[in-house]
Amino acid sequence: MVERPRIVVVGAGFGGLQAAQSLAGAKADVLLIDRNSYHTFIPLIYQVATGQLAPDQVLYPVRTILRRSPNLQFLRATVRRVDLAAQFVETETAVIPYDYLVLATGCKPQFMGVPGADTYALTLNSVEDAVALRNHLLLCLEQAAHEADPGRRQALLSVAIVGGGPTGVELAGALVELVRGRMRRDYPTLDLRELRLCLVQGGDRLLADLPRSLGVYTAKRLRQLGVEVRLQTRVHEVTPTGLKIDDGGLTAGTVIWTAGLEATTPQLPQAIATASKHKWAVLPTLQVQEYPNVYAIGDVAYVEQNGRPLAGVAPEALQQGVAVARNLRLQLRGQQPKPFRYFNKGRLAIIGCYSGVGKIGAIPLTGWLAWLMWLGVHLVYLPGYRNRLLVLLNWLYSYLFGDRPIRLIHASTSQLNRTRGSVQRVP
Amino acid sequence: MVERPRIVVVGAGFGGLQAAQSLAGAKADVLLIDRNSYHTFIPLIYQVATGQLAPDQVLYPVRTILRRSPNLQFLRATVRRVDLAAQFVETETAVIPYDYLVLATGCKPQFMGVPGADTYALTLNSVEDAVALRNHLLLCLEQAAHEADPGRRQALLSVAIVGGGPTGVELAGALVELVRGRMRRDYPTLDLRELRLCLVQGGDRLLADLPRSLGVYTAKRLRQLGVEVRLQTRVHEVTPTGLKIDDGGLTAGTVIWTAGLEATTPQLPQAIATASKHKWAVLPTLQVQEYPNVYAIGDVAYVEQNGRPLAGVAPEALQQGVAVARNLRLQLRGQQPKPFRYFNKGRLAIIGCYSGVGKIGAIPLTGWLAWLMWLGVHLVYLPGYRNRLLVLLNWLYSYLFGDRPIRLIHASTSQLNRTRGSVQRVP
Repeated sequence: MVERPRIVVVGAGFGGLQAAQSLAGAKADVLLIDRNSYHTFIPLIYQVATGQLAPDQVLYPVRTILRRSPNLQFLRATVRRVDLAAQFVETETAVIPYDYLVLATGCKPQFMGVPGADTYALTLNSVEDAVALRNHLLLCLEQAAHEADPGRRQALLSVAIVGGGPTGVELAGALVELVRGRMRRDYPTLDLRELRLCLVQGGDRLLADLPRSLGVYTAKRLRQLGVEVRLQTRVHEVTPTGLKIDDGGLTAGTVIWTAGLEATTPQLPQAIATASKHKWAVLPTLQVQEYPNVYAIGDVAYVEQNGRPLAGVAPEALQQGVAVARNLRLQLRGQQPKPFRYFNKGRLAIIGCYSGVGKIGAIPLTGWLAWLMWLGVHLVYLPGYRNRLLVLLNWLYSYLFGDRPIRLIHASTSQLNRTRGSVQRVP
Repeated sequence: MVERPRIVVVGAGFGGLQAAQSLAGAKADVLLIDRNSYHTFIPLIYQVATGQLAPDQVLYPVRTILRRSPNLQFLRATVRRVDLAAQFVETETAVIPYDYLVLATGCKPQFMGVPGADTYALTLNSVEDAVALRNHLLLCLEQAAHEADPGRRQALLSVAIVGGGPTGVELAGALVELVRGRMRRDYPTLDLRELRLCLVQGGDRLLADLPRSLGVYTAKRLRQLGVEVRLQTRVHEVTPTGLKIDDGGLTAGTVIWTAGLEATTPQLPQAIATASKHKWAVLPTLQVQEYPNVYAIGDVAYVEQNGRPLAGVAPEALQQGVAVARNLRLQLRGQQPKPFRYFNKGRLAIIGCYSGVGKIGAIPLTGWLAWLMWLGVHLVYLPGYRNRLLVLLNWLYSYLFGDRPIRLIHASTSQLNRTRGSVQRVP
């Protein structure tokens, strides 16, 4: 038996999973490694956080995606360390040699040195984060329902979102939908319109990656919906009771940090060229400069196009996954890899409450058409027919009835790192 | 304003929730307390454990059930202590006085002094247990897929179920469905028919609460399905690698304990009459003997009928909930409570693989009709139209395609208390 080369792909997010799938049938054994047994459809996790979708509907087993291709294997493990010179990856329990490596380990929140942010703010970077955020929001409502002191009740009903990118905007809109919907009937002792939503953005507009007019529209729309949008406002500290910002303090029982991301990279004995946010500086072919048998894609790779870095969205990672697979096939045949070029089909962002924004080709879009297109595109890209059907049913249900059905507080994840005011029941 | 009497109901299981619902419109303020924000539909959690249903489909927010009735309130809290003389319940954060109390705090696993059982066995008593069991089973498959040693692989693929009651039988059947279904395609390197299932029962038959012929049928059917059924076998110890039983040892990577339950009761400064399994000995009216303003129902109450204790099934708790509400209304009007009588409409148990057993009136049932009736009855009793629709769709999907779609290993709950063999990948 001839030894086939082994390609190890680390990370089953958009980039890594696509790379593995595009290597189906290649003359190599492909081992995809992820610490979870499932792929997470990150664009929809904010709907898990707000009780619209169940966690299992945005997750899909990696093995099921790979099962038709005999040369694709999966290993559930956490990669601790990678040695690019000796060519192996190290997990908790095994050392796995490789001939080619694709690093697609994604990103994690970046707190940019703001004190208290990593302790007192919640983030939204995984389905566990989403469930923890849902728990936290519902616990605040439970506590507010039995809180007699108006000041403490107002604090429990205040949410501050730091960061005016797509995640911050989506969350703000989804929280408006939540409190306007049917759920408020569950809390007859609360006036959920008391809920105070504040979106804090350092720059001078929202959705900075989209044309200025769309950011302006988004801020206007969110303000119409009752969200307090604060632009050009820097956060100096996150405290157990809220935020310290440029013009004073902001009391909030919930602080959600969506203001920045940095690459998640494994330990490395070698020094390699990096760019901002710990990203690996890669060649136009997506190869690591020092090691031509190593590729980095998605949020771990720093790639420029037309003099500007890529934005870090899913379509970029997907196209990079395809490109890496093509380049690996070229290398396996002894040929030269080709440069990657991102083809931008357009950008969409959802605000919520039947509004979205986007740009398809040169045409900017706002309002319900962009909203509907966002939902449609994400339904098509969601893996698995079963998940697609369930998500569609949930959307129909929740938009028809204004309900957020998954109102469950899981005890196992309700240990918050935020210090909470104690509940005082009036006897 | 005239002070209305306060009824506190502790526990939102079948009994407590029904008691609260039946008190809608009564001339009293009813406060239902549970540590979870949701009611758990316990009969279906075994399907969560085997990946057929998602956790949210068997849970329902208590507040949503109560929201139509202004005199019913909900508090999410854990009751630590009850003082029957001073008439208050104590939670983590509050002391709540009551005029009448309904204790419906359910049950927990009873290990009957078997060493190692509480450390090394998994249980199935809550939705958290179900998710932990699913995690464990899937992790064993993941590890077995990369395990080269045949002995260790066989151990990872061995499941021992202790207890031949409904839960043990359901789990055995559901695990057969799991390994025979489509999921095995996810593990091309494994022969899932290697999976060894053993059901260990101390008594001389399965389903001891049903007529002997049905227990005999169940054992025969499970054996046809490949389950090793061991009757009259006592478990002496649960170890990290399996069981010690009467005739030696049994190696199993997964041990599931379904052999006994005991009442979960709060701390009490008073001494009251108790029966076996820490249950409270109540009067025929379901009142606690020493305190006529206190009721106990469901798994915390010891109730005899026709000289035999009740079996501890959901319909008993539901009927007791109705009876307690009626008795409380009588007491509120200054009248005497009436004795409770359980009306047995019949019993059904599901085996799986299109088989069930049951007894409706005097007629014993076996086979697919009992299976279908079990599914139908549980669909009707499941709270919430949305959950009913989703469960029905999931059943249609999983029985038509033989698939178990929820194959997700959640990292947050994958910390097992069983010591696991380490994975050795063959390079």
